[in-house]
Amino acid sequence: MPSYNAPIDDMQFVLHDLLKITERDVPGYAELDRDFTAAILEEAGKVARDVLAPLNMVGDSQGCRLENGVVRTPDGFREAFDTVREGGWTAIDAGEEFGGQGLPYVMHTAVNEPFVSANMAFNMYQGLTHGAYTAILAHGSEAQKALYLPRLASCEWTGTMNLTEPHCGTDLGLMRTKAEPQDDGSYKITGQKIFISSGDHDMADNIVHLVLAKIPGGPEGTKGISLFIVPKVLHDEEGKLGARNAVSVGKLEEKMGIHGNSTCVMNYDGATGWLLGEAHKGMRAMFTMMNEARMGVGLQGFAQGEAAYQAALAYAKDRLQGRAVTGPANPEGPADPLIVHPDIRRNLMDMKSFAEGARALTYWGATLIDASHRSGDADSEALVSLLTPVIKGFLTDKGFEMATAAQQVYGGHGYIEEWGMSQFARDARITMIYEGANGIQALDLVGRKLAANGGKTVMGFFEMVKTFCAENKENETLSSGFIEPLKAASKDLQAAGMFFMQNGMKTPNAALAGSYDFMHMMGHVTLGLMWAQMAKAAAEALEAGTGNRDFYEAKIATGRYYMARHLPATKMHLARIESGAEPVMALAEEAF
Amino acid sequence: MPSYNAPIDDMQFVLHDLLKITERDVPGYAELDRDFTAAILEEAGKVARDVLAPLNMVGDSQGCRLENGVVRTPDGFREAFDTVREGGWTAIDAGEEFGGQGLPYVMHTAVNEPFVSANMAFNMYQGLTHGAYTAILAHGSEAQKALYLPRLASCEWTGTMNLTEPHCGTDLGLMRTKAEPQDDGSYKITGQKIFISSGDHDMADNIVHLVLAKIPGGPEGTKGISLFIVPKVLHDEEGKLGARNAVSVGKLEEKMGIHGNSTCVMNYDGATGWLLGEAHKGMRAMFTMMNEARMGVGLQGFAQGEAAYQAALAYAKDRLQGRAVTGPANPEGPADPLIVHPDIRRNLMDMKSFAEGARALTYWGATLIDASHRSGDADSEALVSLLTPVIKGFLTDKGFEMATAAQQVYGGHGYIEEWGMSQFARDARITMIYEGANGIQALDLVGRKLAANGGKTVMGFFEMVKTFCAENKENETLSSGFIEPLKAASKDLQAAGMFFMQNGMKTPNAALAGSYDFMHMMGHVTLGLMWAQMAKAAAEALEAGTGNRDFYEAKIATGRYYMARHLPATKMHLARIESGAEPVMALAEEAF
Repeated sequence: MPSYNAPIDDMQFVLHDLLKITERDVPGYAELDRDFTAAILEEAGKVARDVLAPLNMVGDSQGCRLENGVVRTPDGFREAFDTVREGGWTAIDAGEEFGGQGLPYVMHTAVNEPFVSANMAFNMYQGLTHGAYTAILAHGSEAQKALYLPRLASCEWTGTMNLTEPHCGTDLGLMRTKAEPQDDGSYKITGQKIFISSGDHDMADNIVHLVLAKIPGGPEGTKGISLFIVPKVLHDEEGKLGARNAVSVGKLEEKMGIHGNSTCVMNYDGATGWLLGEAHKGMRAMFTMMNEARMGVGLQGFAQGEAAYQAALAYAKDRLQGRAVTGPANPEGPADPLIVHPDIRRNLMDMKSFAEGARALTYWGATLIDASHRSGDADSEALVSLLTPVIKGFLTDKGFEMATAAQQVYGGHGYIEEWGMSQFARDARITMIYEGANGIQALDLVGRKLAANGGKTVMGFFEMVKTFCAENKENETLSSGFIEPLKAASKDLQAAGMFFMQNGMKTPNAALAGSYDFMHMMGHVTLGLMWAQMAKAAAEALEAGTGNRDFYEAKIATGRYYMARHLPATKMHLARIESGAEPVMALAEEAF
Repeated sequence: MPSYNAPIDDMQFVLHDLLKITERDVPGYAELDRDFTAAILEEAGKVARDVLAPLNMVGDSQGCRLENGVVRTPDGFREAFDTVREGGWTAIDAGEEFGGQGLPYVMHTAVNEPFVSANMAFNMYQGLTHGAYTAILAHGSEAQKALYLPRLASCEWTGTMNLTEPHCGTDLGLMRTKAEPQDDGSYKITGQKIFISSGDHDMADNIVHLVLAKIPGGPEGTKGISLFIVPKVLHDEEGKLGARNAVSVGKLEEKMGIHGNSTCVMNYDGATGWLLGEAHKGMRAMFTMMNEARMGVGLQGFAQGEAAYQAALAYAKDRLQGRAVTGPANPEGPADPLIVHPDIRRNLMDMKSFAEGARALTYWGATLIDASHRSGDADSEALVSLLTPVIKGFLTDKGFEMATAAQQVYGGHGYIEEWGMSQFARDARITMIYEGANGIQALDLVGRKLAANGGKTVMGFFEMVKTFCAENKENETLSSGFIEPLKAASKDLQAAGMFFMQNGMKTPNAALAGSYDFMHMMGHVTLGLMWAQMAKAAAEALEAGTGNRDFYEAKIATGRYYMARHLPATKMHLARIESGAEPVMALAEEAF
């Protein structure tokens, strides 16, 4: 069974050396000094390593079971959930008035990483609950907040999100679920929702379903969608539980992975629900949660990759096979460890350089969310909105690639379930699909985010990269292998943006045909920026003589690898984009 | 359940328009005219569609079971195997003297494609048997041939390959299985072999295990390895079955995919075996089968991709979601089909252009094998040896990518097992690993094949591309979107080869660190050459006014897509290769 250890040193490096969080002017950040965050992250790492990771393969092999209409979770999940609750890990960033710890979102993100790496399927029960908490916090009435938030913060009750229906996923305008107003101010919800993660289980007293539905007579399409709170068990105003609501599990899906999480078909048969926020403004309510939810999925992508990488690294150091081409590295043994072989190294360096870059990007994104929510900083809000599809789409594509690459290090054993490597790939696969399939992320980026604020936000991002390059071109570390590749990649990205501007108006397909490539290009440029900033921070630490020299030197070398071997991808993506819509759209539908 | 139809038109196009097989000076090719091959391929397509494809998900969900030491195959497999046997499909290219049809290997390859697309796990029972047939044909005594070949050709008995042991896969020099000579000329085989595909099952009277083992006292390492025939059931010289041999199934592996095939741990406990070929020459005997075996795995890669593509295409035409950005394509319906969206198109075109290119490359490779085996043409033998790691490594990487991309078209449904898309990805995943993991293919290509014949073969390949470009630069079709990209990509490939030559001698790691990128570059150049040749053939057919104009026009448009959108990858790979060994090897082992 693969073991997992939270990469505390690297997490601390990102929070303090790179992001310098205590120096940021965001309420709540001043107290997040190195010792404070280390204490929290080390405890989280222990829970991940000792409680959650050992249940990862159990969850995969047992899966959830539907028994008499009730979902049973795998052995050990209930006890583990109690441990997580008791440790206060469900409410890191929940308000203190609702029983939370009131810490910034960046700490929720950092704590979440080891939990997701150790057991993604398990973590989703609390992840969806966090989403429901955020939605009710943003849109609930005072009474709804008082009733639900403390229970969701503690995970005494858990939450779900109900969007998709059998005939509509991305295109929610086709939705059929109905919400009929009742005299007492409640609604009767009727319809079927599918792909409901954590839809039912045996680990909490109640489940708060947030359900998108249409109130009859409202506007057509997405403008007529409202959001409802539909509890599994009805309750009074104090939360005292009563009768079962008319909501039931129609089916438990058999999936490629995340078997430990219950993915349900939910049937609403005149279930009682209450409006959350305004009528017909359900889509807007969903959108307010979207940056966080999509960032959370991006984190899942690289966190699965990180866990798979740790396993592959251990195997590469242990497994003896062949000899180094430069002469035996383990002359006493029958063969050398795999890690001596350049192609295995390439594979490990791909994973390592990606995971560390992705961590930096995700935590940075979390600080932007904090700046937006805690300081009301509109620029941070705009920037994180621009980056969100990149974090979701690029990090999950690459995270799955990492998990697949890690399998490859194991050779045939990577394909055998008992070694655990297949699970990482199977689990990671969903991150490219849910919370908006990655093609939709690319569409969001190119079709919506580039043009947001009249293009000011993306121009600001380009400017940020340019300024960084200009200001650091004399830096001895950065001038060797960082600044030039970043400038070149950024230039490619801007050229692609220019191509869209020049062609997108008269040929919208020209922009859309290149959207996926643009998302990946922007991913590389963003990670390139992260790496350049990390190398600078590492060089400063080396200069100051603080901390572990080996760590900082490895950081710089890993960054050089990413710049040398991954940034050249932008040339390929630009060439594809500049080939335009014609090759993509040339065939008539019948010609396929 | 995804349905599958053999792409007969495209298979025929490759055999006749592109490869012009009847015009090739290879014994047995003259009779392979359009009508003859169409008749065979259509029948094979029916078996694939009606018998094998319906059992694909059955095999996946039921898997094999080990009951009292015997493996039971999924429901319907026995009957299907009888159908395949009775149709003569197991012995397309087996000698007529052994009950086969004596057709060239290219026909075996073409017939195999729909079988693999429809049900890869099932096809492996006959695939491994084909491998055993080939090995005994090449290295067996006359008595061994007379005894085994007719039974293997008919699949009355099936075959296996036993190489890997728990502690050694790639590095067979570490092998521990022993073969002790007996007075009667037989050997007692003792040891454990793992990952034995089709290792046991209930579909044949006997199983012929080909086992690599060491005769005590022989040379160290791989030079002391011999190959043995070890039947599951002992038999007399006429093949009459007697007692069980001392070989048993230790375990049935739980795998990520190909559940319908039994992957066994095989225990040899003093089992009786007979030497196949010469003592200590087992590795050489294995190598003679390797080109075919690896080409067969390359075919599995793209054939799984093809099956997944067909399913994704059907879904993209059927599923209504969103509206075309250029205006409604299905104004009467509630939404447009997915296929109107440029990013879905991109995805479909990636799959289509890859599958068609891969088909051409694989069938071409098969004609080179025929030229080598049937005409003794050394140049063809050398060329196919060069291309084999590309066919295996590149086509399986891309085939898995296709299966993953096809899942993506289905959105959330792609992750749910009942839709069948997850299976394509899970099944395709093994092709990147077995028969030499793809990193080993890259090593074989760069470390061995480039230098073979003093580099003459690879120079000949470059020359072939160059000559084609020079001869066709005035061709109206090719001059628009084919010749220039192919020239540019080929130039990149040659630059990479030059880099290896200049740096590989003094820094062997410099070549090895770039080997994987080189394999992909060469894959793109090879597929680029295939596409340029196909476009030329299609243009000629259009000019001649023969056949289906729409088909030929779509062929040219699909080729333009591949050239415009995939050949630019060579620039990225070249940049990575030219960054050398330093970034890859910079970290000390402890610094990971």
